[in-house]
Amino acid sequence: MSKDQTKHKSQSPKVPSSTTGYAIDRFKRLQQKEVSVKVIFDEIINKDTAALSKGITLIESTKQKHSKKAQQLVEMCLPYANNSIRIGITGVPGVGKSTFIEALGNLLIQKGKKVAVLAVDPSSTISHGSILGDKTRMESLVRSSEAFIRPSPSGKSLGGVAQKTRESIILCEAAGYDVIIIETVGVGQSETAVHSMVDFFLLLKLAGAGDELQGIKRGIIEMADALVINKADGDNLLRARKAKNQFRKALHLYPLAQSTWSPEVLTCSALEGSGIEDIWELILKYQEVTSKNGFFEENRIQQNKFWLLQTIEEQLKSSFYNNPKIKDELNSQIQGVQQNKITPFAAAHYLLELSKEK
Amino acid sequence: MSKDQTKHKSQSPKVPSSTTGYAIDRFKRLQQKEVSVKVIFDEIINKDTAALSKGITLIESTKQKHSKKAQQLVEMCLPYANNSIRIGITGVPGVGKSTFIEALGNLLIQKGKKVAVLAVDPSSTISHGSILGDKTRMESLVRSSEAFIRPSPSGKSLGGVAQKTRESIILCEAAGYDVIIIETVGVGQSETAVHSMVDFFLLLKLAGAGDELQGIKRGIIEMADALVINKADGDNLLRARKAKNQFRKALHLYPLAQSTWSPEVLTCSALEGSGIEDIWELILKYQEVTSKNGFFEENRIQQNKFWLLQTIEEQLKSSFYNNPKIKDELNSQIQGVQQNKITPFAAAHYLLELSKEK
Repeated sequence: MSKDQTKHKSQSPKVPSSTTGYAIDRFKRLQQKEVSVKVIFDEIINKDTAALSKGITLIESTKQKHSKKAQQLVEMCLPYANNSIRIGITGVPGVGKSTFIEALGNLLIQKGKKVAVLAVDPSSTISHGSILGDKTRMESLVRSSEAFIRPSPSGKSLGGVAQKTRESIILCEAAGYDVIIIETVGVGQSETAVHSMVDFFLLLKLAGAGDELQGIKRGIIEMADALVINKADGDNLLRARKAKNQFRKALHLYPLAQSTWSPEVLTCSALEGSGIEDIWELILKYQEVTSKNGFFEENRIQQNKFWLLQTIEEQLKSSFYNNPKIKDELNSQIQGVQQNKITPFAAAHYLLELSKEK
Repeated sequence: MSKDQTKHKSQSPKVPSSTTGYAIDRFKRLQQKEVSVKVIFDEIINKDTAALSKGITLIESTKQKHSKKAQQLVEMCLPYANNSIRIGITGVPGVGKSTFIEALGNLLIQKGKKVAVLAVDPSSTISHGSILGDKTRMESLVRSSEAFIRPSPSGKSLGGVAQKTRESIILCEAAGYDVIIIETVGVGQSETAVHSMVDFFLLLKLAGAGDELQGIKRGIIEMADALVINKADGDNLLRARKAKNQFRKALHLYPLAQSTWSPEVLTCSALEGSGIEDIWELILKYQEVTSKNGFFEENRIQQNKFWLLQTIEEQLKSSFYNNPKIKDELNSQIQGVQQNKITPFAAAHYLLELSKEK
């Protein structure tokens, strides 16, 4: 893999690789339309961030010709992937996700890790923004050469957005990132999608008053491997501790997950940096326990199968609902069904027959 | 609607409707192959149980010509349906579902109600039995002329089984049943299917030791409108009360459902008949609250839409996975994906293209 890099260096021998001039030159070359997938691949596994960015841009492109190249690239990277720990982080807006990720990311970099932060946020398509778009919120992490931060890809469907992020994980792993953090916001089905692409799923919460599970979307708690109460500082400290006890009791009542891991509750202050080390140690403990009992590996295998079937089913639905004949008829059938004029099954049968007509 | 019945009576004027001879005659006529949908329909809305059975048999038939008739029949019944309360009851085997349904059913009949008991149990296809197959378990209910009991339809897919049960609900309602009880066993996705066809969902439990939510499948608790601890009698009474308190605390931590109804925890002894009246009053209270806030009606409308989309999506998947070319290739693609030789998305793309080939 370093062969190509050597060759490349010998082609511009007078420019030391550390200079900005060289970097710009390389960047320009990667920007060229005719740059081959092989070149991008070589640079990615050589840990080149510009190539990684370029590769992810290919993945995110909606152009047909890019899509083919992207698939080739992802497949070339596959044998070099699967060597990181993938951590999903969710929580409602205002819970301090960015500050938390920055604190965790900086700690990991101190420990010699390379950290990639990706996002799944289908809502960013509408706002043309992204939870990670405002990069100033992760200022110090953005500046670190050991961190790679990429906003959520845009896309019409959660499935499309999730696919792009999932393929980007493979590229990041091939580029040598040890820890992949996937951020998502507590909206719609995005947590389920993220949960299905990570090894460890962390739910970030604030200490509130009274019923602590109120306001958490149904089903999310059952996916969490850890529940972390953020902003446990100052006046909030006591409340956070109280909330921690409440959550512990509640989680204790849930059936044990397939991983045999009992989700833990921790507190932290991402702002002050307290409690972050404990969270990382918990994640390492999870990795140890689930690697020993085989769940870690088995879970990734099952996730791969899940995404295969998920993609098929999403494509089938999308081509059905985008059929112009169905678009014309669907609403009136829904209305008929809702007004009890026709059964759901008869309406479905009618629409399915309609979709088969030439 | 009574016109046809009158006509029918005038055709056999000498046979009083109460005699067995008349019943047998009518039954035979309904057994005839050529009996028209209109005749079955007329008898159903005239509260004839034999016609109701015949109608449900049409729905459950896998023959093409029956399927068309069944759809006609269901559509004729639609304007006469939607006037019952539909109650879903789930719980693991051994919890006493049959005894509970018998106790509840008998109470309702005492109160002048007509009760239909249907079932959704996809596992009964394999065992060639059914949770309601052993009718002796509901002996007194079976004997009552105000009760109609029908075992789970058989079928390869949960969707198919659920569709048949859902259409049977319409026929039962048209036949004048006020309370429709849908029984299901805590296996697979059947609870979700039943939850999507009932107004009120009741989870039956036993008092165990220690962690009371352990052993309940993930997600079921969040669907329950009531949690009933059965076998609260004899030595078990204290344990049942303790369990009730534990469940109450746990349920309190859950987010409020869309219905704004807070699920309640009750105890009963179906065997001794204690606590059954309280459960029925709770169901009536639920109906009152959710009728006032509009959820009751809105929920049924949304359920209809859900079943329309659900049926479409299930049919799309079924014709894809039953395509002989896909059957040949799917497993090797899954293996490739699980061994990281190909991405799930590339494999899905390959299979989708394959399915389009003529």
